[in-house]
Formats: sequence, structure tokens, C-alpha cells
Amino acid sequence: MTDPLVVFTPSGKRGRVAPGTTVLDAARRLGVDLDSVCGGNGICSKCQVVPVPGPHPKHGIEMGTGALSGPNAVEERYDRVRGLRPGRRLGCQATVMADAVLDVPPESQVHRQVIRKEAGDVAIALDPATRLHLAAVREPDMEDPSGDFERLRDALRDQWGIEGIVAPLPVLAALQPALRRGGWQVTCAVHTPRRGAPILVGVFPGLREAPPLGLAVDLGSTTIAAHLCDLSTGAVLGSGGVMNPQIRFGEDLMSRVSYAMMNPGGADRMTEAVREALNALAREVCEGAGAAPEDVFEAALVCNPVMHHLLLGLDPVELGQAPFALAVQGALELETREIGLALAPAARAYLLPCIAGHVGADAAAVALAEDPGARRETTLVVDVGTNAEIILGNERMTLACSSPTGPAFEGAQISAGQRAAPGAIERVEIDPDTKEPRFRVVGDARWSDEPGFDAPVTGICGSGIIEAIAEMRMAGIVDASGLIGSAEATGSERCVPDGRTFAYVLRDGIRVTQGDVRAIQLAKSALYAGARLLMDEMGTDVVDRVVLAGAFGAHISPRHAMVLGMIPDAPLDAVRGAGNAAGTGARMALLNRGMRARVEALVSDIRKIETATEPRFQEHFVAANALPHATAPFPNLRAVVPLPEGSFNAQSGGRRRRRRA
Amino acid sequence: MTDPLVVFTPSGKRGRVAPGTTVLDAARRLGVDLDSVCGGNGICSKCQVVPVPGPHPKHGIEMGTGALSGPNAVEERYDRVRGLRPGRRLGCQATVMADAVLDVPPESQVHRQVIRKEAGDVAIALDPATRLHLAAVREPDMEDPSGDFERLRDALRDQWGIEGIVAPLPVLAALQPALRRGGWQVTCAVHTPRRGAPILVGVFPGLREAPPLGLAVDLGSTTIAAHLCDLSTGAVLGSGGVMNPQIRFGEDLMSRVSYAMMNPGGADRMTEAVREALNALAREVCEGAGAAPEDVFEAALVCNPVMHHLLLGLDPVELGQAPFALAVQGALELETREIGLALAPAARAYLLPCIAGHVGADAAAVALAEDPGARRETTLVVDVGTNAEIILGNERMTLACSSPTGPAFEGAQISAGQRAAPGAIERVEIDPDTKEPRFRVVGDARWSDEPGFDAPVTGICGSGIIEAIAEMRMAGIVDASGLIGSAEATGSERCVPDGRTFAYVLRDGIRVTQGDVRAIQLAKSALYAGARLLMDEMGTDVVDRVVLAGAFGAHISPRHAMVLGMIPDAPLDAVRGAGNAAGTGARMALLNRGMRARVEALVSDIRKIETATEPRFQEHFVAANALPHATAPFPNLRAVVPLPEGSFNAQSGGRRRRRRA
Repeated sequence: MTDPLVVFTPSGKRGRVAPGTTVLDAARRLGVDLDSVCGGNGICSKCQVVPVPGPHPKHGIEMGTGALSGPNAVEERYDRVRGLRPGRRLGCQATVMADAVLDVPPESQVHRQVIRKEAGDVAIALDPATRLHLAAVREPDMEDPSGDFERLRDALRDQWGIEGIVAPLPVLAALQPALRRGGWQVTCAVHTPRRGAPILVGVFPGLREAPPLGLAVDLGSTTIAAHLCDLSTGAVLGSGGVMNPQIRFGEDLMSRVSYAMMNPGGADRMTEAVREALNALAREVCEGAGAAPEDVFEAALVCNPVMHHLLLGLDPVELGQAPFALAVQGALELETREIGLALAPAARAYLLPCIAGHVGADAAAVALAEDPGARRETTLVVDVGTNAEIILGNERMTLACSSPTGPAFEGAQISAGQRAAPGAIERVEIDPDTKEPRFRVVGDARWSDEPGFDAPVTGICGSGIIEAIAEMRMAGIVDASGLIGSAEATGSERCVPDGRTFAYVLRDGIRVTQGDVRAIQLAKSALYAGARLLMDEMGTDVVDRVVLAGAFGAHISPRHAMVLGMIPDAPLDAVRGAGNAAGTGARMALLNRGMRARVEALVSDIRKIETATEPRFQEHFVAANALPHATAPFPNLRAVVPLPEGSFNAQSGGRRRRRRA
Repeated sequence: MTDPLVVFTPSGKRGRVAPGTTVLDAARRLGVDLDSVCGGNGICSKCQVVPVPGPHPKHGIEMGTGALSGPNAVEERYDRVRGLRPGRRLGCQATVMADAVLDVPPESQVHRQVIRKEAGDVAIALDPATRLHLAAVREPDMEDPSGDFERLRDALRDQWGIEGIVAPLPVLAALQPALRRGGWQVTCAVHTPRRGAPILVGVFPGLREAPPLGLAVDLGSTTIAAHLCDLSTGAVLGSGGVMNPQIRFGEDLMSRVSYAMMNPGGADRMTEAVREALNALAREVCEGAGAAPEDVFEAALVCNPVMHHLLLGLDPVELGQAPFALAVQGALELETREIGLALAPAARAYLLPCIAGHVGADAAAVALAEDPGARRETTLVVDVGTNAEIILGNERMTLACSSPTGPAFEGAQISAGQRAAPGAIERVEIDPDTKEPRFRVVGDARWSDEPGFDAPVTGICGSGIIEAIAEMRMAGIVDASGLIGSAEATGSERCVPDGRTFAYVLRDGIRVTQGDVRAIQLAKSALYAGARLLMDEMGTDVVDRVVLAGAFGAHISPRHAMVLGMIPDAPLDAVRGAGNAAGTGARMALLNRGMRARVEALVSDIRKIETATEPRFQEHFVAANALPHATAPFPNLRAVVPLPEGSFNAQSGGRRRRRRA
């Protein structure tokens, strides 16, 4: 008689096994992804399967009712005490007696896919670096005076194939009580680093029910965001954010570098501040999820180079001056306590690699999340912050640069500028005929001309100023050169004199000045010039897709961005916001070891283009000053958006070369 | 024309090299041990050689005056600025032009032998785990945005063949300033661990003149001893010792374990105390040698299992009860800061492996230093402290056990007992005819019956009580069963009633009581029984050599030890003190990487014998109660020392079986 045939779904893996083989053993033999923490002792229930009796013409099997053995004492006990869902069987107890089709539900798969709900299009395959394993350890014996750790190491080797594990002191300190309380069974949190021996990062008596947790951190200059993830399911258990307290030492990165240069001990103070904030955030996010920082066994962190150095306790001074040398560029694997982060006592940190001296691990994370190298089309990824990180890639090559946009896009250097906090104007529309504006403020869903609008209005934030100037351009209040016209020239009383230039009054006390337009022009010219430089390097004049990454990118309207010429011309529907792509990259690296290899490979393949030393950058910068651009035709934009001609500059207007929309 | 022949002495290595080859290159090609820190740049002068012109019939060479090139500009500059000893040449600058004989002086050899002056017979070959290398690092370049660390890593690979070095954060923090101050040349302190990638443990601008230092530590229950060594020469630059402050928590190991069990946080307090003492000792020893703790790049530590666990911050509770399970048994490689030891910021610690739950790393160090497995003869090594560690070995096998002697040998549990401090009686002689004693005290070289002796006498220390009782036995004041006789029975008025027994008055207020003799009998029976158990296991009734290790062992007279039957009978001249063999083992492990491999192999080869569970131990213990022994004949001892017969026990004396000397 031939051995029974087993087919596992959804993988479709199939093969014959000897009658009496457990389902878990059959799965392992056939390479089927079936989880187990307890190693087949019938206590963790991670190996549940769903038998599918009946005819399966597709597989050529008719599964009878006796195809699996009935529940044995272990399985009955588990069902009685803990409860098994109807139709479920414990894979480590049920044995195969005849041909069978067995479904492995997602929660029984180690490498299940985690769908990112908030953005919908990135699926993260789960393959965490830290996993739990139950180990049965030989008791000590005076005839064989090996240490408890050595016997645990042997148990992990023999029972789980984990070779040569090492244990840091805090875990060694927990080992002896855990072994004795657990009756010589312990759950081991085992971390597999990118390089070197596996590391025992936690040890707990008996079977640990609580899943191992991980923290994905996007450490920005302005805000720090963290996601707490269940490493066994990939689920996000909680998220949170705090302001980066380093702001008190300097609003933007360069002022923080200056602070470090000018103040002895300044870098250390900033290091301390950011570490404290990170700890507070970790505690808060854990608390919100009903967990404790001690349950978190690893963190994946992304940040720009200055934050990267300050987090690590490295003086960022070299990042403030050419040639912008990083102290260390590659990915780092550390204990979180080395960077002052109090999670589980031996928790591990993975810092994604930086791309260059001012293209950081945050840009690397964006590259990982968006992976432009995986497509034939050419994708431009722009992460807009105080500096813009720009990545241009397709399946042939990926290029990256950083462009010094300055903080204007964040509302700084703008006369009525403020952070995106309640009271800040964030959306603006200007009627092209009446030149009258309406707007919305952060914290209120109504437009300013809707009934009942009475929110206090305190200033204008980054996305607000971009929309305002783009609307002014479309309404003919600002010309292509960026000049604001007078009331006579524009036909709007809202254009008021402001010294030797004009300003547009959005509301009493809040106006867009000529200086504001100039600040945005400088910022957007830098951004466009960086993108254009990469296009030159690639030898292309068009991009097929544009991704606006970064928290700020999520709030910029593609149409307004293109009216200002922040980004090269492209079909408007090919421009999309990617939300916090850097944070997504951090989560991918947290949940999947392969993504760590991937981002390291990506970064070493990316060609870095230095904007500061490239003469063409200056040319592109000058040409990009106009709105949208002095020479580039922007056909996609002009096909859908009217851009009034005419100049408000009496002297130069007549000589200016014009293009038709 | 054939290439010139070069012979290097003292190695005798020889070979032909192309004319114009530098002496350093020739040495490397021929596998000659010639040092270099600067890698051939003519600045470190570690590669000096001594040309030996003239006829060399032994080598078949006549070396002419032009056999080496004359000093070039680099060598002349070095000689002018720093001075070369007459006859010396820089191996990296001098080139071979014709047949030559070149002597490599000891200070130019990496693997030179270090002779231990204080004991004379152990030569340590130098092969330290931490060495200095000068690396020339490529400057950063905006076209290639690698980190400074990555370029240093490449330099160490290309210039020194060191692959894949890793750098801890404190070294990364020092890297950028060092590179810039050193003009892109830095001296790297590179540590090669037993397992894993090489580690950058220090980085310094330009050529670092100061040698790398190391600390060998013998962490005992009572005292902590440290030797500061120059890792580039093996020289001991300074030594020191302090009391172990844990004494305030308990005199002996078991009382410290009890303290940890009975007091929440007690283990932590002891950990903190010993770490503080270790730091203070390190600072003191460094200061005495004109160095700083920051110059020390590694430490090798030996200690018994309880001290081992307390140093590491591991609760020693399991070591207080059968089966005496160690948390970890194997050798440990750590950063010294992980054990709270403040040396160089990334300094490394190597803890020798423990042999078993109460046979520690100190015993492993003794086994390394004495290496009984390297001889045909059978050697018994006894390390006497609160516990005795006993090793018995020859080329066929090595056995080890620990025996619970208790603290009597250290003067505790003795009526007039005290530590070996000024005022303590340490040597005793009793005239066999008059039964009158004389003695010497710690801190005074005169005997008590010599003119001018007026030292205060405060008590009796461990070696003093052993000598006193052995002398009492030889003078007929104590019988073979350990009974002190009355004044009538012994003919000495110094034997005075003391309750229902007698005591021997050494001096007013200082007497040896019957209880003292019993305490020493218990201790020595345990010691002897342990040794005897190992002899049984080996199947031998004789040992060829006896080594008394430990600071205490250094003060025990072999004759007195044998009169008491502390150790098995052996020719008296085959018994010797080895001084602090554990400390020597620590120094060997510090100075030579191979010794780390050796001690790990030794420990895994040593068979551990458990005294607590072996029924014969009890038999041996009872038989060993007599002085020297109830049944063993002790022929070597009786051949040279008179041991009076007779019993002071009226009841049992007559029935006692007697032997002739």
C-alpha cells in the first residue's frame, strides 16, 4: 500500500508521508510554512491546520473522515483548557492516516503577508529577525558540570537547529530563575542578526504567551514617529509621535550642527534630549497597546544623517561642511541600551544605512518602501522636509541626491508662517475671476466661506503657503517670474503695497508677501534642480511617476506642486503622495530580515549625485526660478491648468519670452 | 647572477630575495617574526635589525659592508630626530643588495618570549590579542560618500590584511577627530577575539607612541590582585592588590551566597562593591606606572565561580546548593564596561572558563600555568584558599575537584586566628626536647627569641597555625589522633587545662586549643580526601610532584604541610610553592591569544570529580583525620621527620594501631 498523500493549501505543496506522521512533521518535510513555538509539544497552538474533507478533483484526492487521527489526550486537553476553534486541529498532535487536504490559515504561517491598510499597496512578507522558541533544557548534573547556558545552547541547537547562540549578560542574569520556574522549559527570544552569531535576547519560564514586539521608528528633525508591531503577526499594535526636543537647540539640521560646533558638550546634550524623547515615546506607545517596553525585543530606526549621528552619540560637525563625511555609513546592529533606549534588557536595534552625508537612512527607507528599481517606468521619489531627498530610478539604475531646500516648505522664513497646528491655514483656493480667497485651517473641516466658520486663524503652514502661491499664480496675481502685481495690474484690492513690492491679503493680518514668494521660489528651485540633475544623469527628460513622500508630501496637492514647478512635469494622475514612506521602510526592515539585506544592497547600488559641486545644478536652479519654469514646457500641466501670461515687471516684462498654455 | 641570500638570526630562516627588497619585506616573505606598527613608513622603528658583517661559515655567507643599502632620507631623518642605536637599521628602509646576515633583536620580535622573573620557570610567548597598526585612510570625497569608518575598514584590510573589522560606538565617536588631527593617518588598536570579527578598540591621531596596556586580574574572595602589562613587550609595569570589599557581606563564599539569598538586592550590592574595588585598583596600578586606565585595552580575569557570577552581575544562589549549577561555564568575551570596569572606552575583557560549579576560572588558570598534562610524571596541584581546588594530571589525563576545606587554613575559626597582617604569628618552631616555642610575626624578620624582638603579637595567621600544630606533632605535644597532651603527659608546663581538654600556650594570651587542632584536622582531611579521590580515579597511589598554588600556598612550608597530612606523601623536594599560579594563568591569557585557546581546551578535557556525591570521599575524609593519616604510610615523610608515637587518649590509646617511622 502506498503512503498517504498530503496536500497543503494555499501553498499547494504535496507529498507522501508514512502513516502516523504528525501534520507538523509532514509540513516540515514538504517545506510548508507552518509555525510552531513549542516545537511540537501541543502547548503553543501555533501549528493549527484546517482539514478539508471531501472530494478535491484539482488535487486528485478524496479526503475521508478518518484521514487524520482523532484528537489525542494532549489535543483534547488543549481544547478543554484553552479552546480550539471549530474545524481546527493541532498540527503537532494530529497524524496523517490517509490522503488529506490541509489548509494552513494565515495565522499559522510564519511568513504570512502583512497588508499595510493605510496605504493599501505595500504588502510586507513577515520574516522577523526575532522569534520565540520553546526549549527543553537538560537539568544540571554534578557529573557534567556544564553551565545552564551551555545546556540551553545545546537544546536550541538540537531542538531548533540554532547553532552557537550567544547571550548578553542581562539575559544570562535571567536564565537560572527562568529555567527553574519553568521546570527546565523556557521560551527563548532568539534574534538572528545580519552578521554574526544568533543572539538570545530574552528567556522566560515555560511557554511565553505574549508575542515578541518590535518598534519601527522614524526619527525626523521635527517629529519622531513610532509604530509598535507584533513580530509574530506583523500587526501594528499602536502608533505615536512626539516633537523632536532638539528643536530647542535649532529649528533645522544645520542650526543643530552649528549648535554642536559652537557649544562644548552641545552634541551630547542633543543626544541626551533625543534619547529621552525616544524613551518617552516608546513608553507611551507601549502603554497605549497594553504592553511594556520590556516586551519589545528590537527596534528598526530610520533618520537623516544628522539625527543618525546625534542618536548614536557621534558629533555631527563633519556633516555641516563639505565633503559631508559620515562617521559611519553602513547599517548598524546594536543593543538598544547602547543608544540609551530602554526596551527589553538585551533588545537589539537595527539602523538602516545612510546613502551619503546628507542623504540619510530615511531616504534609504523611502527607497526600500517605494523600490523604484523594481519598475520599468522611471519613478521620481521626493521626500520633502528641511532638506529634500530625491531618488530617481528604474530597473536600469537608481540615483539619489539631497537638495538644500531650506525650511520654507515647512512654513519657516514665511512672514505669517507657522507649524501645521490648529489655526494654521493649510488649504487655499482663489477664484480666478474675483481674485477672492477662501481657505481651511488645521483642526476645522469647513472652508472659511462656509456658514459657521469661526476658527481662530493664526498663520499659514507649509502646505498652505504652497497652495496660496500656486493659486495666486493661476489667478493671475503672481506672474511667471514670481512678482505679485499691484491692485491696478491684478484688479484685486487684496493686492496692497508692502514697501517697494506688493502683498496679497488672505485675511486681516495674514498676507503673502513678495518675500514669501521669493522664499518658496528658492526652495522649489532647489528641489526641481536636484530632480533635474538626476534626470540629466540618467539621460532622460521625462519621468513616468512622481511619489511625494514624507509627512509633508502627504499634504501637498500634486496640482499645486506642479504649478509652482516643484517637480518636473508629469501626468497629474501619475503623481501621488506616499504618506510616511520612511516609516513604512522602517516597518519593512523591522518585520522582515530580507528587507535588511535588500536595503543594504539598494544603498550600495544607488549612485549618489552631489548637488553642491555639480555646476549644472546652479544652471538648473536659476532656470527653475520661474513659476513653473523658465524653459521647460510643462505640457502635462498646461493641458489641464490655465497659467495666465503677462508680467508685472514694467521694465523686463516686455522683453520676457512667453509661452502659450 | 643569483639573487642575494639573506639569513635572519636567531630564527635561522633564510632565502633569496631580489636585490633592492626591503629587509621588512624580506622578513615577511620568509616568515620571519619582525614587528611593524607603521607598516613600513619609517616612523615606528619597531622593525629594527642588526646587520652582522663578516664571515659566517655556519651559514655559508660572507657579509660585505655594502650588503645593505645605505641609510636613505627617511632613515637619516629618523636617526637625527629620534636616534637609532649604533649598529641598528630600520628594516623597512634598508634594502638587501648582497648576501646578508641580519639579527632580529628581541624587541623587534612580535612573538618574543617574556620571562617571568619572580618565579623564573614560566616563559610566556607574546602574542597579544590587541595590537597597534598605523593605517593611512583615504580622504572623503563627495563623489564616493562612504563613511570614514568604511574607509578605515578598507585601509586595515588593504594595509594589514585585517578583514571586516567592527567598531563599537565609543570608538566611532573618536574616529572623525582622530583622522583629521592625524592627517588621515591613525593608529588603530585592533583586538582579535576568540570568536567573531576583529574589533577596533581604539583609534588615535597619527602614530601612537604609548604601548597598548593590559590588566591581568586575579579576583579572589579575600584579595583582588592586578598586574598591569605592556602588551607590546609583555613587561609588567605595575602590580597591586586590595581587599575584596565583599568581605563585609560575608567572610567566605558560602556566607556571601547566603547573603544574596537572604537579602533582596544583596547580590547586586556585592556586584557593585567588587566592581568599585576593581576600578579603584585599576586606577591605582595605572597611576603607579604613570599610565591612565584609558590606556588599558583589555583585561584577563580569573576568579572562583561565586566571584565570577558576582562580577558578572549573576545571582550566585545556585552555586550555594547541589547540583551547583553555573549560569555559564565557558570563557566569556565582553566589553569591560559591561562589567562596570572603566578602562579604555571600548576595552575588552576575557574571563577564563570555569571548570565546574565550585572549581572556577582561578583553577582553570592554575591548570594553564602549571599545565600538568604536559608532563609524564603525575603532578598534584593544590590551590588552598577557603575552598581548595585540586588538580591531578599527567600526559594521560587531568582530573579536578573542589574540596570544602572551610576557612581554617586562613586563620578563621581558630581561637587566636587572624589575617596575615602585622602582628600575626606566621612561623613557629618548637624545640622537641624543651617543648619551648619560638616564632616570627608578619612584619618582623627576627625570631621571637632573638635579641631586640619586641614586635606586638596580636594573633596567629593561617600558615602560623599550620606550622604550630605540625611542630606540636613533631615535638610530641599533639598525638597522631590530634589530642593535645597534658603537662604531665608531655612534660611541658605550656600544656594547660582548657575546659575538659588541653591547650598549648605559645605566648601570653595566644594558645593553640584542642578546638583549633580539630578545625585544622577537618580542613586538612577535606583537602587530603579530595586529592586521594582524584588519585583513585586515576588509579594511582603515588604522586610525583606536588605544587602548592595560591598566595597561601606560597607561605606553607612543604614539610609542615606533609606532617599534618594536608597532601599525600611525596619526596619533600618534589613539593614546591608556585606563588600566585592563578594570577600567572591570567597573565598568560592576557599576553597570548593561544593561551586562551589552550585554557578552553584544557577545561573541556579536564574530568571533573564531584566530591559531595562520591561515597569514597567520606571514607577518605575519615581516614585522613589522623596526623598525618590513619592508614597511609607516608614513607617519604617518615624518612626525614620524626613523628613521635603514643596517644594521649587514655581510653582509646591502647587499642590504636601503630606504625613505625
